[in-house]
Amino acid sequence: MGLFTKDIQNLNDLFVHQLKDIYYAEQQITKALPKMIAKAKDAQLRQGFETHLRETEGHIKRLEQVFQMCKVAPKAVDCPAIDGIIKEANEVAGEAANEDVMDAALLAAAQSVEHYEIARYGCLISWAKRLGRQDCAALMQKTLEEEKATDQKLTSLAESKVNRQAA
Amino acid sequence: MGLFTKDIQNLNDLFVHQLKDIYYAEQQITKALPKMIAKAKDAQLRQGFETHLRETEGHIKRLEQVFQMCKVAPKAVDCPAIDGIIKEANEVAGEAANEDVMDAALLAAAQSVEHYEIARYGCLISWAKRLGRQDCAALMQKTLEEEKATDQKLTSLAESKVNRQAA
Repeated sequence: MGLFTKDIQNLNDLFVHQLKDIYYAEQQITKALPKMIAKAKDAQLRQGFETHLRETEGHIKRLEQVFQMCKVAPKAVDCPAIDGIIKEANEVAGEAANEDVMDAALLAAAQSVEHYEIARYGCLISWAKRLGRQDCAALMQKTLEEEKATDQKLTSLAESKVNRQAA
Repeated sequence: MGLFTKDIQNLNDLFVHQLKDIYYAEQQITKALPKMIAKAKDAQLRQGFETHLRETEGHIKRLEQVFQMCKVAPKAVDCPAIDGIIKEANEVAGEAANEDVMDAALLAAAQSVEHYEIARYGCLISWAKRLGRQDCAALMQKTLEEEKATDQKLTSLAESKVNRQAA
């Protein structure tokens, strides 16, 4: 995140900073997902990752709209949290000896990514509303709903198939 | 996480590995929370962190019970995800110029921690059930409920007070 320079004096400054943080995170996710797609064995899991990659590209475009609405140039700042979460996912992708258990681990890593985003967008939406930016909140709410839906789909897939194959 | 050695061949191996991962994460959280308590200005936020510190100590004890039930020695493995999330929280604690906006940022950081744990315990519980370990699943379910309740309390506090003070 690189949080904080000392010129973050109010909620608007914090909002803009966290916007740059999630902008970085979404970009890192678009780089991580193709590796996860390449490693996933289960076709449904792979397809889920592919769908989420397209959605993530849309989330980046929405963030660019939010930047524009706030008259701030789109810029990413480092986010050690997403770097750490993706580092785990890459380690899974690179080191698993068994394809079925790797699918279970990849799926779990993806859920950690989703939950990070759910937490971040939840805060951003709450802050946008407090700042009187219902327009920004409404855009990010669409993204939040997609992140939650992806998390639920991953849970269903884990319980109906992937975890059973790995057991 | 340090995921994966190549001897993770099945879901039980993955389960044990992730158990060690969250055991490390919970330990790091007990180290991070006192710093967040020391920095928080709002009394209710501070009290929330104090309550969660006591709960986290209980989560560690429950994990040790789960290790014992699985006849595995309790051991922590590095978890870059929680390290990254806590790094963000520490940066907030150390660098904010304004107490009210720092509270909002600390609260947001705490919600990222909660969501990481919600994702991890969700997977662990699902895997425990698949492995026929209802006993382990039931113990961790108690922790998961506490993590979700903490996240909800943080959301309420943010919306009712902390974000308003920071605006």
